[in-house]
Amino acid sequence: MISKLIDKIVETDAPIVVGLDPKLDYIPDRIKEPCFEEKGRNPEGAAEAFWQFNKEIIDNICDIVPAVKPQIAMYEELGIPGLIAFKKTVNYSRQKGLFVIGDVKRGDIGSTSASYAEAHLGGVGIGDQFFAGFDEDFATVNPYLGSDGVKPFIDVCKRQDRGIFVLVKTSNPSSGEFQDRIIDGRPLYEHVAEKVNEWGLDCTDGSYSNVGAVVGATYPEMGQALRRIMPRSYILVPGYGAQGGKGEDLKGFFNSDGLGAIVNSSRGIIAAWKSASYSEFNDGRVGEAARAAALDMKLDLARVH
Amino acid sequence: MISKLIDKIVETDAPIVVGLDPKLDYIPDRIKEPCFEEKGRNPEGAAEAFWQFNKEIIDNICDIVPAVKPQIAMYEELGIPGLIAFKKTVNYSRQKGLFVIGDVKRGDIGSTSASYAEAHLGGVGIGDQFFAGFDEDFATVNPYLGSDGVKPFIDVCKRQDRGIFVLVKTSNPSSGEFQDRIIDGRPLYEHVAEKVNEWGLDCTDGSYSNVGAVVGATYPEMGQALRRIMPRSYILVPGYGAQGGKGEDLKGFFNSDGLGAIVNSSRGIIAAWKSASYSEFNDGRVGEAARAAALDMKLDLARVH
Repeated sequence: MISKLIDKIVETDAPIVVGLDPKLDYIPDRIKEPCFEEKGRNPEGAAEAFWQFNKEIIDNICDIVPAVKPQIAMYEELGIPGLIAFKKTVNYSRQKGLFVIGDVKRGDIGSTSASYAEAHLGGVGIGDQFFAGFDEDFATVNPYLGSDGVKPFIDVCKRQDRGIFVLVKTSNPSSGEFQDRIIDGRPLYEHVAEKVNEWGLDCTDGSYSNVGAVVGATYPEMGQALRRIMPRSYILVPGYGAQGGKGEDLKGFFNSDGLGAIVNSSRGIIAAWKSASYSEFNDGRVGEAARAAALDMKLDLARVH
Repeated sequence: MISKLIDKIVETDAPIVVGLDPKLDYIPDRIKEPCFEEKGRNPEGAAEAFWQFNKEIIDNICDIVPAVKPQIAMYEELGIPGLIAFKKTVNYSRQKGLFVIGDVKRGDIGSTSASYAEAHLGGVGIGDQFFAGFDEDFATVNPYLGSDGVKPFIDVCKRQDRGIFVLVKTSNPSSGEFQDRIIDGRPLYEHVAEKVNEWGLDCTDGSYSNVGAVVGATYPEMGQALRRIMPRSYILVPGYGAQGGKGEDLKGFFNSDGLGAIVNSSRGIIAAWKSASYSEFNDGRVGEAARAAALDMKLDLARVH
């Protein structure tokens, strides 16, 4: 799977993933109100607004970026209707040629982790038929439970040709509370990175492995060290833009081949229409603003990869 | 919320939570086949079988145990129909007077963690109405992202009178890979436990706090040490029975007041009808076998709390 994503990154010349993390505040009335009128001012109406909002963004960016990353928490918050909107978003994105990284941060033990892996990257056999679940191309995984928690995902990745990104060093201010603690002279996140590298050796696909890592843009010096520990793992980099990470900080996340990292922007693209930097779209032109912001991000990153 | 759960534990004299983690293999044909006939041999049919199976168990245990713990991964694996069965299970359990611990192991950063917290313990305001999401009483939370990831859950716990159990030391064989690594002379899980204790001070409810911990029955000596580090946190103990933990090992998880721990059994109760120990129910009497197994577990635990 990673080799296909890399081909698309090279083709679009954009190591960019657009975070589809809708909130009602990001959706202009011209999209929201007809949804509420049709479905009610309730989770069904809100979920319909999420879907229409996403669809407009997807239509406007699908030819210039390789991937999207819907954050399932935003959809789960709306209960079942929200998760239906999540699934529609995944299906439509794939239909438009975009790779889908499900930002689900799942992780449990043994057969339970296997169920999560099947839910997001595989499916279930019932009778003599196979039914896919949410059917993303990649999923994010939490490593706190150790190899038992991650390996079931890798088994599904091998069988279905999918990939994962394991949380190594997250972009938030308190990520250091546990992740930075020193064990045998090195921070915990480096120990996790070593495991990611080891897990990936068992699941390569071209020059890279299907086991990637999440490392926040907000910690560029750590990104550089982690790049070396996991030379064959793609790094998914959140925290660009709204969380404070800048293009110039990201050089260390890439390998010398110009590959090795894909940078996420959510709010900076999907809510660009509301920002002062894109004032020409402030009247609610979500899709056009998202496209302009994605093109600007591409320029900003062109200097570092 | 924890004080209400404690009242129910005392009333039933059973520090027991029944894990509602259905698998098609656990469901006898007499339940499964009518569901497949009605809904099809597909995820809809399988989800209906999960729900009918759970309902029979709930009906047979609701007067002898205080709580159930549905593991959302099993439902998520079936996609949307599975999650509908999860929600029906949560609602029906609460209706029958059972407390519901949603075993969701969610965790992310900032506003994303807030969305997960609202999804499982709170709800969303749309227009002037409030809509609950999955509406569990407690949820399990992964701490790898630090305080930023956990505090949004605590905020919702305070507002809605709910509780969480934070993963501290999980029951699986490889849990030590990261959790046992030594930091400043003590294992990581003890550092996490200190944080759990600290977070809980801000969210007390009677003698205990609404911030509990998950500590596996498979590590009894660690349970004892962790009990002392988090005196006011309830410990949710998975790994009893099928995973190898025995009643006699669990003394150290309890405080001297006989409280402080609630022990989970999933397969040992919900699939008891298939086991040699309950051969009189091998013809598929799920509910009766579950009741017998829960009563046996109660006897086994009576000696240690």
